[in-house]
Amino acid sequence: MTKTKKKDEKVRKENVKYVYYFGGSKADGDAAMKNLLGGKGANLAEMVNLGLPVPAGFTITTEVCTYFYKNKRTFPKSLYQEVDKALERLEKEMKAKFGDPDNPLLVSVRSGARASMPGMMDTVLNLGLNDTTIQGLIKRTNNPRFAYDAYRRFVSMYGDVVLELKPQGKDDLDPFEVILDEKKKARGVKLDVDLTAEDLKELVSEFKKAIKNKLDIDFPEDPKEQLWGAIGAVFGSWNNNRANIYRKLNNIPDWWGTAVNIQSMVFGNLGEESGTGVAFTRDAASGENIFYGEFLMNAQGEDVVAGTRTPLPINQLAEKDTKSYNELLKIRKILEDHYRDMLDVEFTIQNKKLYMLQCRIGKRTAMAALRIAVEMVKDKLIKPWEALLRIEPDQLNQLLRPVFDLTAKKKALADGNLLSKGLNAGPGAATGKVVFNAEDAMDWAKKGDKVILVRIETSPEDIGGMDASEGILTARGGMTSHAALVARQMGKVCVAGCGSLLIEYKERIMRVEGKDIIIKEGDYISIDGTTGEVIKGNIQTKPSEVIEVLINKTLKEEDAPTYLIYKQIMEWADRYRVLRVRTNADQPDQSANAIAFGAEGIGLCRTEHMFFGEGKIGPMRQMILSDTPEERRKALANLLPLQRKDFEGIFVEMDGRPVTIRTIDPPLHEFLPHDDAGQGEMAKAMNVSLKDIKERVESLHEFNPMLGLRGCRLGIIYPEITEMQARAIFEATVNVIKSGKRVLPEIMIPLVGHVKELKNQEEIVRAVAEQVIKETGVKFDYLVGTMIEIPRGAITAEEVATVAEFFSFGTNDLTQTTLGVSRDDAGKFLPEYVSRDIYKVDPFVSIDQSGVGFLMKHAVNEGRKTRKNIKLGICGEHGGDPSSVEFCHNIGLNYVSCSPFRVPIAKLAAARAAIREDQAGDKHRNFKKDKKDFKKKNK
Amino acid sequence: MTKTKKKDEKVRKENVKYVYYFGGSKADGDAAMKNLLGGKGANLAEMVNLGLPVPAGFTITTEVCTYFYKNKRTFPKSLYQEVDKALERLEKEMKAKFGDPDNPLLVSVRSGARASMPGMMDTVLNLGLNDTTIQGLIKRTNNPRFAYDAYRRFVSMYGDVVLELKPQGKDDLDPFEVILDEKKKARGVKLDVDLTAEDLKELVSEFKKAIKNKLDIDFPEDPKEQLWGAIGAVFGSWNNNRANIYRKLNNIPDWWGTAVNIQSMVFGNLGEESGTGVAFTRDAASGENIFYGEFLMNAQGEDVVAGTRTPLPINQLAEKDTKSYNELLKIRKILEDHYRDMLDVEFTIQNKKLYMLQCRIGKRTAMAALRIAVEMVKDKLIKPWEALLRIEPDQLNQLLRPVFDLTAKKKALADGNLLSKGLNAGPGAATGKVVFNAEDAMDWAKKGDKVILVRIETSPEDIGGMDASEGILTARGGMTSHAALVARQMGKVCVAGCGSLLIEYKERIMRVEGKDIIIKEGDYISIDGTTGEVIKGNIQTKPSEVIEVLINKTLKEEDAPTYLIYKQIMEWADRYRVLRVRTNADQPDQSANAIAFGAEGIGLCRTEHMFFGEGKIGPMRQMILSDTPEERRKALANLLPLQRKDFEGIFVEMDGRPVTIRTIDPPLHEFLPHDDAGQGEMAKAMNVSLKDIKERVESLHEFNPMLGLRGCRLGIIYPEITEMQARAIFEATVNVIKSGKRVLPEIMIPLVGHVKELKNQEEIVRAVAEQVIKETGVKFDYLVGTMIEIPRGAITAEEVATVAEFFSFGTNDLTQTTLGVSRDDAGKFLPEYVSRDIYKVDPFVSIDQSGVGFLMKHAVNEGRKTRKNIKLGICGEHGGDPSSVEFCHNIGLNYVSCSPFRVPIAKLAAARAAIREDQAGDKHRNFKKDKKDFKKKNK
Repeated sequence: MTKTKKKDEKVRKENVKYVYYFGGSKADGDAAMKNLLGGKGANLAEMVNLGLPVPAGFTITTEVCTYFYKNKRTFPKSLYQEVDKALERLEKEMKAKFGDPDNPLLVSVRSGARASMPGMMDTVLNLGLNDTTIQGLIKRTNNPRFAYDAYRRFVSMYGDVVLELKPQGKDDLDPFEVILDEKKKARGVKLDVDLTAEDLKELVSEFKKAIKNKLDIDFPEDPKEQLWGAIGAVFGSWNNNRANIYRKLNNIPDWWGTAVNIQSMVFGNLGEESGTGVAFTRDAASGENIFYGEFLMNAQGEDVVAGTRTPLPINQLAEKDTKSYNELLKIRKILEDHYRDMLDVEFTIQNKKLYMLQCRIGKRTAMAALRIAVEMVKDKLIKPWEALLRIEPDQLNQLLRPVFDLTAKKKALADGNLLSKGLNAGPGAATGKVVFNAEDAMDWAKKGDKVILVRIETSPEDIGGMDASEGILTARGGMTSHAALVARQMGKVCVAGCGSLLIEYKERIMRVEGKDIIIKEGDYISIDGTTGEVIKGNIQTKPSEVIEVLINKTLKEEDAPTYLIYKQIMEWADRYRVLRVRTNADQPDQSANAIAFGAEGIGLCRTEHMFFGEGKIGPMRQMILSDTPEERRKALANLLPLQRKDFEGIFVEMDGRPVTIRTIDPPLHEFLPHDDAGQGEMAKAMNVSLKDIKERVESLHEFNPMLGLRGCRLGIIYPEITEMQARAIFEATVNVIKSGKRVLPEIMIPLVGHVKELKNQEEIVRAVAEQVIKETGVKFDYLVGTMIEIPRGAITAEEVATVAEFFSFGTNDLTQTTLGVSRDDAGKFLPEYVSRDIYKVDPFVSIDQSGVGFLMKHAVNEGRKTRKNIKLGICGEHGGDPSSVEFCHNIGLNYVSCSPFRVPIAKLAAARAAIREDQAGDKHRNFKKDKKDFKKKNK
Repeated sequence: MTKTKKKDEKVRKENVKYVYYFGGSKADGDAAMKNLLGGKGANLAEMVNLGLPVPAGFTITTEVCTYFYKNKRTFPKSLYQEVDKALERLEKEMKAKFGDPDNPLLVSVRSGARASMPGMMDTVLNLGLNDTTIQGLIKRTNNPRFAYDAYRRFVSMYGDVVLELKPQGKDDLDPFEVILDEKKKARGVKLDVDLTAEDLKELVSEFKKAIKNKLDIDFPEDPKEQLWGAIGAVFGSWNNNRANIYRKLNNIPDWWGTAVNIQSMVFGNLGEESGTGVAFTRDAASGENIFYGEFLMNAQGEDVVAGTRTPLPINQLAEKDTKSYNELLKIRKILEDHYRDMLDVEFTIQNKKLYMLQCRIGKRTAMAALRIAVEMVKDKLIKPWEALLRIEPDQLNQLLRPVFDLTAKKKALADGNLLSKGLNAGPGAATGKVVFNAEDAMDWAKKGDKVILVRIETSPEDIGGMDASEGILTARGGMTSHAALVARQMGKVCVAGCGSLLIEYKERIMRVEGKDIIIKEGDYISIDGTTGEVIKGNIQTKPSEVIEVLINKTLKEEDAPTYLIYKQIMEWADRYRVLRVRTNADQPDQSANAIAFGAEGIGLCRTEHMFFGEGKIGPMRQMILSDTPEERRKALANLLPLQRKDFEGIFVEMDGRPVTIRTIDPPLHEFLPHDDAGQGEMAKAMNVSLKDIKERVESLHEFNPMLGLRGCRLGIIYPEITEMQARAIFEATVNVIKSGKRVLPEIMIPLVGHVKELKNQEEIVRAVAEQVIKETGVKFDYLVGTMIEIPRGAITAEEVATVAEFFSFGTNDLTQTTLGVSRDDAGKFLPEYVSRDIYKVDPFVSIDQSGVGFLMKHAVNEGRKTRKNIKLGICGEHGGDPSSVEFCHNIGLNYVSCSPFRVPIAKLAAARAAIREDQAGDKHRNFKKDKKDFKKKNK
């Protein structure tokens, strides 16, 4: 930390405000203060400022969380005073008092981080109840049953969250649930609602007794003590296991911390004139512009979210409480106009009065994100560039994913394999083996099985297993249940609330109500997250609409609404982006696919894949077995026409777009069989002795093949290979030019560490080009460049650029050498490294910007020093990773190259990078450039 | 090339002077113009300026050579004019004319590069002779036999060098020699001198006829045509095969080019009052301050150097020509006082008149270089810093090399195994298998054989084979013969001019005159380059004087004169150097040796070597076979006392000097046997199944172990290993402190790429240190630092230095990763790379300064940004390579660490680097700082 920074921090500490009040018509904070107040606190403040009905309360800032963890879980001293003051103000506002036996103030204590982490942290409701204040609540509500229900909920929640009386291990039961179930059994009832006030009162003391027995703790009666206990527990829950996993999965930094919101309670469970619900301002699954939500009358908020009762669709609220429903519709409009985005709200109706408890930008499926973004532009709520910033590039991926093969699915349905139908909570098609708990899901997936996680309902503990599964199926819970929310966010297929499933965890089976079917652990099922169907067996999947239109051409645009959304987004991406997007392809059909996705050239054509093709491996092996250049030349002569044909196919398909062809790269032993059987076959096929083959395999063996005789080293030691490849490329060029097409081959020399290596190979390539031009009389353009994939190549880029007309960053190998990590061997430590936060993300997935990125920036600068217009690209797998694409944009590459199916994602990432760069440059939160400015700038 | 540079070159080209005249009392050039005039030309000019008797002539500059190769072997136009002018001036000076039938001018045409390349390029003598001018020469000398002898020499030399009528292949004979031999046979004589003038005249026309027959070329009669032919041939010889090999061996850049010297002929073969000789101003073998040389009366210079006649010692010249001898002694003094160095001169006496033909700084043996340097300081000719600049650090190496074990040698002599005695041309002891030609020497050496190259005489074509041999033995030639000169320069053992050897190339045997012994190819012989003895068999060698005094302590200083020289040089080196020098050692005895050589600490103690020791491999393997941290801890507990004991031994020996200990580095599979037999033994020894062992070996297998689970990655995955090692180190520290010694352990974490890796290990080390301090009550100092050996560690050095208290550059691995080259696999391409000049030197021998060096400089700068006083060192094998040591000095490291036997070399290299840096800073050719300035500056 710099000195100035330290000083700043000190000054801030002295004047620091830890508590922000909201209530009445004005709040201390607003929506812009998310980092300090967390999402929940900032939006509660904003709603107060918008004049919406919000129960009053206050937010303890995320800075307290940081302090808490830096200071052995203690609080800053001034916090106690500030909380006291805020409490006083709240008591005045609510005309109730903490601990007042007549009119007690009850509050909720909830977490609220910068980014939503639904269900990951802890909550305590009805805080302030004790054996005295319960009487006040009974008086106020005139409803002893409600009051004791609230009390027993509070005691169990507090016991669980603050005092930590919890189930131990996955097969243990919740101790409070056990007591509750016993009570119901004793009373001979099935549902909680059938318990009387007296039953609930007994439960309160039984819960307290259990706490005393098991923990030797007296349940705290002092509301202030309760409050500080809850505040500490909620801050503490920032660091629980599931929150840590969630943050890792979602790249949320640990140091952000959570805020804590203390808010006066309103009750949706005061009777049939009360209720509670959650809603999205648009359909979070499909993105359709309809008010979409669920509610339950006479219920507390957790009842809706937890999925323990299945709620009613929001439009039915119009019948139950027209006034509140209409007010909600108005609020929906106010919020969308104000936030200019789709929102997720929570509300409670207490005796016909509506209260807003939360609003936040709504999570949505990839499909919904795309549709909402596109439609909000049409509605002039947002600009196209804003639309693009709202879509994560990887969300596009889901549009490309397979759906069920309709015929196969129809047959399965006709065969009577439909097991049940639930809620279409996470669209898409998934098929896999049934597992019944999260740990098994992770274990099986590790072994390579595709699994469907089947649970009665999911809880935050299941998050790892959900991530490991192809899809999630639950028996209980609605569209906003934990399973549904998390699945959508993860982009997982999910069918939720499938009530007819009878799941028996112990036996590891599931039955279907009314059917004589048992699905055992390991059996295949298929779930359709778009329709909610659950089907027995392994149903074949088929390509998505986008694939059908673009690649298979079996569907017309106008019949493919999701394709039209895709198309609109790609148009905008193409409008804003500066980076060109190429593809990695080495076959004509791959090239065709890539073009369909809008690839602007081939950034990496690996020639060695071709050697494995029909009729090619023989001559290749002949070449490797040769002892002299002459013998090698003879074998290579047999390969020449085959390689030429490959190139012709690609050139025809690419039709004038640049094609970067890499000369042979892998070590020669990769072309030989390493097992006895394969060597025997080879010996027979080639009519040589097995001993000869074994000897050659032996002599080609390397200790570290990654760092051995490969790349341009091969071409330098065996110049005749480069000669043959150059000839195949240029003869193909000539032939395709003769057919009337344009061809722009770019010959790329791999693994260059020293300019003289490149020079050596470049001279061969240029000599062959001249020969071919002379022989055929056909002139053509071509470039010679290099991969930058070992540190020395990047370091000496200024020299390398004296020969190279282009650089293509081979970030796979550059990562291996820069980090000293073999990708093939990294499995033994890299996952551990990521989980220990040594590397935030796997550096083979997303470019390690401070290490590998340093060398890339250096090479870009040095390369341009020597050759101002040098073409710069990337052809490692990072070329399809959104954050890597953004990095490539920022360091000024000309293009990225990725696999055909990631071209749309790279394009979107490139556009977002360009938009963000402009925003950053303007230093304005509101980026007002329109497309024309962009076009001008990017010329 | 920059624009300014191009422009400069253009301007220079327009005013360029290509020819520099020397003669009379003033020359156009001087000794400082070596780059332009070559060494020979510059020194001829200098001698003229010193008033010494030099035959007049002129030098064509090295720039013409550059032009020649850039312009398809043509000359700049203005050269012809300049040469004509210089020729005119020369004719006037010499009062003779080119082509004059009465008084013809005869010249020699010789090469002369910046650095001496003895015998590598071509020479033509007696140029200007033709069938007309021969009459003039006869008249002038009144000696037809001499004249025809000169003529036939000229024709054969011109035929060979310019017209290229040469032997084809190693078994072919020289076509002119064949004719000469036939002539001698026909005349019934044995020696050249027995041929008459008429015989020689016939030879001239027979030579010309052979040229006509074999090449269809008429021998050119026009002296001008002869001259231009010779000039072109000499420039052309810059690029011949042996010159190229020589340059590569001696790191002479190809672009330097050679100059060409045209000098009027003087004749040492006009009769018994003429002669020729070469001499060193001091003894080039021992360095003794005596005039040392050889001469032959009635001979041409080539006769002495080529070794075809064995010349007389120089002091015998006093009898033959007292005046010339005394003049020579005077010149010796003038030259040494002027050049302040030992010189090598060539002279010719023509009819009792002395001419100086060449002077240059004399090549010398390592021994001579050291002695001369030390004695010239004593004589106040030079300063100590100049003395150090004159010794190549690697020359010290020779002082450390073994000599023959005296007892073994005495026994061999007593057994009658002395074969012969020759000249002690290259000191030292060598033993090996006899080979009879250079190609075999190279082939055998490649297969791992130690060979002695035995030749009748060596020629420049043999240079590769000489380099591959342990020693060189020739039957003909003196102390200044080709074999002797080259061997001394290479630091090879050499016995030359061993006339009693009868070598029969065809039969591949050698006989000894008067003895009934046949030595066949492949038989062992031993040669003593200090005494000249040639002994049959393989005689055991023994340590040098320095080793006997310092290490074995079997000899007293005063009885070891070479040790005293070594000691003086080390004193000076210690005075000037800034870099500290440590050693790589992991055993107490190695540590003791290193201290004897002056090591100032241990820079790299590899702990894994210890695990292979007695009783340690068992627990180590037990640890590797463990499945749980508990099992591993148990096995490690057995290793703890053993490791502790190792460290105690080293700490005691190092007695307070810093000791850098690297935690475990190699992949675990290196500790397991990989063959069936070894695994079987291990299974038996450890009482586990062979299957278990095979499975573990299999599971530890890595594709690229260099980039796998090793270094700090091991310590992170298995923290208990780091814990045990830290404990062993600190417990040893405490024990040795208790014994009253100081200990400074520096714990070094290997293979760090990310600061968090280091942090992880540092925390473990510090925790153990605290524990040990607590347990024992003994406080101690220690440092925790890291190897910088993968690019990412260097790149992010600023971050790494937040934790690291020192960096030690592991340049072995840093070279592997930065260049993407596995050292174990590089044998397939790296030698080829060096020979193709892709890398000038093997980057594993000498630091690749533009690649690896870039990262080192970066890490130094970034590391010091974070931690101003961070300790910086190098522990790769480059730490003992002089040019790498200089680099380390220049980038500001604090120390280098190398193997014990290279400590003196590193110290000298460090001192030279410090001296040179000061010179460069002063921008003066004459570096006048004395030692006090140095001391002040380096405080």
